Amino acid sequence: MDIEVVLVNPVYEGNVGAVARVMKNFGYSELTLVNPCELGAFAHAMASHAQDVLDTARRKTLEDVLVASNLIIGTTGIAGSRASLRAPYQLARLGVKLSEMRGIASILFGAEDQGLSNEVLQECDVVVNVETSAKYPVMNISHAAAVILYSIASATTPAERRTVATHADLDRLLQHTSEVLEEIDFPAHKRRRVLLNIKRICGRSELSSSEVRTLRGVLSRIELRLRR
Amino acid sequence: MDIEVVLVNPVYEGNVGAVARVMKNFGYSELTLVNPCELGAFAHAMASHAQDVLDTARRKTLEDVLVASNLIIGTTGIAGSRASLRAPYQLARLGVKLSEMRGIASILFGAEDQGLSNEVLQECDVVVNVETSAKYPVMNISHAAAVILYSIASATTPAERRTVATHADLDRLLQHTSEVLEEIDFPAHKRRRVLLNIKRICGRSELSSSEVRTLRGVLSRIELRLRR
Repeated sequence: MDIEVVLVNPVYEGNVGAVARVMKNFGYSELTLVNPCELGAFAHAMASHAQDVLDTARRKTLEDVLVASNLIIGTTGIAGSRASLRAPYQLARLGVKLSEMRGIASILFGAEDQGLSNEVLQECDVVVNVETSAKYPVMNISHAAAVILYSIASATTPAERRTVATHADLDRLLQHTSEVLEEIDFPAHKRRRVLLNIKRICGRSELSSSEVRTLRGVLSRIELRLRR
Repeated sequence: MDIEVVLVNPVYEGNVGAVARVMKNFGYSELTLVNPCELGAFAHAMASHAQDVLDTARRKTLEDVLVASNLIIGTTGIAGSRASLRAPYQLARLGVKLSEMRGIASILFGAEDQGLSNEVLQECDVVVNVETSAKYPVMNISHAAAVILYSIASATTPAERRTVATHADLDRLLQHTSEVLEEIDFPAHKRRRVLLNIKRICGRSELSSSEVRTLRGVLSRIELRLRR
């Protein structure tokens, strides 16, 4: 889906700039401002290298946003109970949901001091909340935007997969280790246990083929010196 | 694990305050400062209701941090290739890793303009990176902290599970719907298809028992009016 970030009645220009920056960090550029504060030098300073996002931000009424969008996502700093207006949709699932839909998804953030009003939340298709400590749940708006946009972006662009060494590579590494243990006269009755230990360590650390080669290079060097 | 956030050579006091705030948002309080800038009014303003985190921050040398910690986690804005110093550990897995270990985990953030030096990264057990758009990968330090701490916190405190209605509840709802379709003379040959459609919609939306009751209340009301 096309992601649009909508700031409704933002009060502090620095936050508008900071939100623009974090949008660009995660590859989003569609910023819409509903009745914003004035944007001056501080907004632009906080936007850093996201001046383009700030400069191309559209001014709209909330009605225009609601009419054009396919999915309205409200945000709230206070999650409500199940049946309430603020009953949250799991943030961890939002990215998956969006990756399966087509159209415009508008993520609404309310004013820093008040959040979205009940009237606006009423219009939202889903409401999300960043789960925080109960002791201090109020996040800065750009921090909340960072977490929500990260969460969406990471669900839509899965992490690069890492190629691990083959089982045969690992077997050869263990065989090589076993030979070195023999050459250094490591107590025979302890060898099996140590090898199993090393096997498990390798399994946990998900060695790549090149890492296996590096380790075997070290083993070969040990053998070379032992034989001198 | 006990999470400690370590800011190494932070340059802007506002960022130190903002990091303190986001730490408290996610329930963390151990802030360590290595060679920080002066912390004045702006740092305290950005910390908002996390004054305690800022006030109890410890000043340490990097050496002291390295000696006391069980796991040193470096952060970098630029992920490196596999074999390099900046080869990142998957952020999505870090929280799980931490939840399975005991001791102190120190998350190091470098200076805003330079990040952690190669010398410091060399000391780190793992390096993490927030995956960003290649067009603008440089995040504000407090935004990066927000994402990383959120990621850790959400892995260590799993989301509340939602109780969905029983299959029998849903069957009764569908049966009730079927009766209403009959009463309104909905074309018989289309009923099965519509009911299946509704069944799938219910399945996707994970109705709670109380939501099923609400919907059945509406159906009963329809029947009541039809029979008048």
